[in-house]
Amino acid sequence: MSKVTCFKMAELEAFFQENSLPGTCTKSENEAKEFIKYHKDTGNHVAFVTSGGTKVPLEGNTVRYIDNFSIGMRGAVSTEYFLQHGYAVIFLHRGRSLEPFTRHLQNLRLLDILEVNSIEHGSNSSVVVKSDYCPQVLNVLKTYQDVMKKRQLLMLEFNTLSEYLYLLKACSLALSSLGNRALLYLAAAVSDFYIPKDKMPEHKIQSSEGPLQLSLELVPKMMAPLVMDWVPDAFVISFKLETDPSLLISKSKQALDRYQHQVVIGNLLDTRKREVVSVTKDQENWIRLTDKELSLGVEIESKIVSEIVEKHKKFCSHDCP
Amino acid sequence: MSKVTCFKMAELEAFFQENSLPGTCTKSENEAKEFIKYHKDTGNHVAFVTSGGTKVPLEGNTVRYIDNFSIGMRGAVSTEYFLQHGYAVIFLHRGRSLEPFTRHLQNLRLLDILEVNSIEHGSNSSVVVKSDYCPQVLNVLKTYQDVMKKRQLLMLEFNTLSEYLYLLKACSLALSSLGNRALLYLAAAVSDFYIPKDKMPEHKIQSSEGPLQLSLELVPKMMAPLVMDWVPDAFVISFKLETDPSLLISKSKQALDRYQHQVVIGNLLDTRKREVVSVTKDQENWIRLTDKELSLGVEIESKIVSEIVEKHKKFCSHDCP
Repeated sequence: MSKVTCFKMAELEAFFQENSLPGTCTKSENEAKEFIKYHKDTGNHVAFVTSGGTKVPLEGNTVRYIDNFSIGMRGAVSTEYFLQHGYAVIFLHRGRSLEPFTRHLQNLRLLDILEVNSIEHGSNSSVVVKSDYCPQVLNVLKTYQDVMKKRQLLMLEFNTLSEYLYLLKACSLALSSLGNRALLYLAAAVSDFYIPKDKMPEHKIQSSEGPLQLSLELVPKMMAPLVMDWVPDAFVISFKLETDPSLLISKSKQALDRYQHQVVIGNLLDTRKREVVSVTKDQENWIRLTDKELSLGVEIESKIVSEIVEKHKKFCSHDCP
Repeated sequence: MSKVTCFKMAELEAFFQENSLPGTCTKSENEAKEFIKYHKDTGNHVAFVTSGGTKVPLEGNTVRYIDNFSIGMRGAVSTEYFLQHGYAVIFLHRGRSLEPFTRHLQNLRLLDILEVNSIEHGSNSSVVVKSDYCPQVLNVLKTYQDVMKKRQLLMLEFNTLSEYLYLLKACSLALSSLGNRALLYLAAAVSDFYIPKDKMPEHKIQSSEGPLQLSLELVPKMMAPLVMDWVPDAFVISFKLETDPSLLISKSKQALDRYQHQVVIGNLLDTRKREVVSVTKDQENWIRLTDKELSLGVEIESKIVSEIVEKHKKFCSHDCP
């Protein structure tokens, strides 16, 4: 273990110790281990996609927290394309954020697309999807069922920052057994700041005490131990979201220099659905949708994932010539 | 207009001016006006239920915001009971929070309960709900369809604090035409703190600048203008959520004294699903579920709403003897 990661590890361990975790985390960890073992045996590539924002509590008995605008679009969409490329996918996402497949039906209220079908079955009423919605639902349903039958997708949830970091570490350690066949696509919007447990008020902050001053500390960066110690042989992609265009490239390069992983995908809040920049050690490559592609509903994730899969192939062939 | 509310109104107007609103707010406002006019003509009582937490942005180009733990259970459940009591309901809720009826199916993943039914229809496949889930879905679906056919329910969404305050005011003003037949059940978890637009950083806060200091100001209280000016004849219920038991009663009474509305429902974070206290000018009345009721799945909202409806009846009969 290098000196720099040793320090980061200590920070992270302290973080885990001061933040308690729900029992569901261990259950998710076990499911991930089983899924990875299964695909190790089948020889598949496994993509680990993280998605959505992390909650950071502001009080011990939490009423308020800091959150992130992300609804998990990038991760949910990309997962579908990784599946199309034949990857098995562990989709670690924020509870109630967008999910692959289901996202296509997100704007439909479930109860508005269903109807009772009592004509054919007499007293044994059945519930059917209204014929207007059938083609749309059918299409998504068939793909989803095919993926699940092949055991190609595992969906795991997190809510708080602690749950995310715990599962990130647990899944990474399990993925390391796959060597370079593991791909980590870290699209989750992880909070940079948090309030340590011992500096948190126990009870709900009272508005009668006037305006509020909050002091937030930096979340330990997990990229260093992840890249160097947890999955040293894997192909790792991180994301950099900015709102200021002048910072995008420099911040992306800085991340790559600092953690020495394979790719940073840089994107701006306003334009993230039509252009991103893929930054590697050797090049910056803008991936863009044309106006025509946008109007046809092409998703930029189809291009991002294609490029990533190409790079991953090369990465694997270099490792094992 | 009283002096005290005049001051609060000025604060609120300033708040609206500095926070821009999406166009969907005007659309929702118009839908509410139409719905209220319809039920004014039919002579129905109308309950205005607010539900879920408000988002408070921390940056101009918002990446991060402060949120509230609420998933909108109290409001969604109570709405169903108001409908059972014959009220028409405007359900103003946070986007992606729980909704009446749909909430019963919340733990089911849509794509896991559907299946393709191609046997009967040959090439014209239909999509049906799997028979295991049929009784549950059927039950909810029938009640929902009945309610919607009678035009008894209008669902409106908000996300940010500004959207919530705008729609609260617009709907209240429209409801005032109903006099005492309007009931406001303000269960939404509204932020007490926010960062004014002119004190907000334009761009995403950088973690490279070290730990974060945030200064939040108090959100203008809208209860005073609401009770005294917007809906002076309506029956108004507010909620007080605390985590410290020693503050619950005093804080609830304080709210009632200050705003002079009809009922405060006090509840503690840990025990809110099995006991609440209904505080009025004359009494404090604990509403509790027994262990037996809890094990049978009785919802405390059924009791809260029954008590509120009784009080509303008396309120209306006192007004028009």
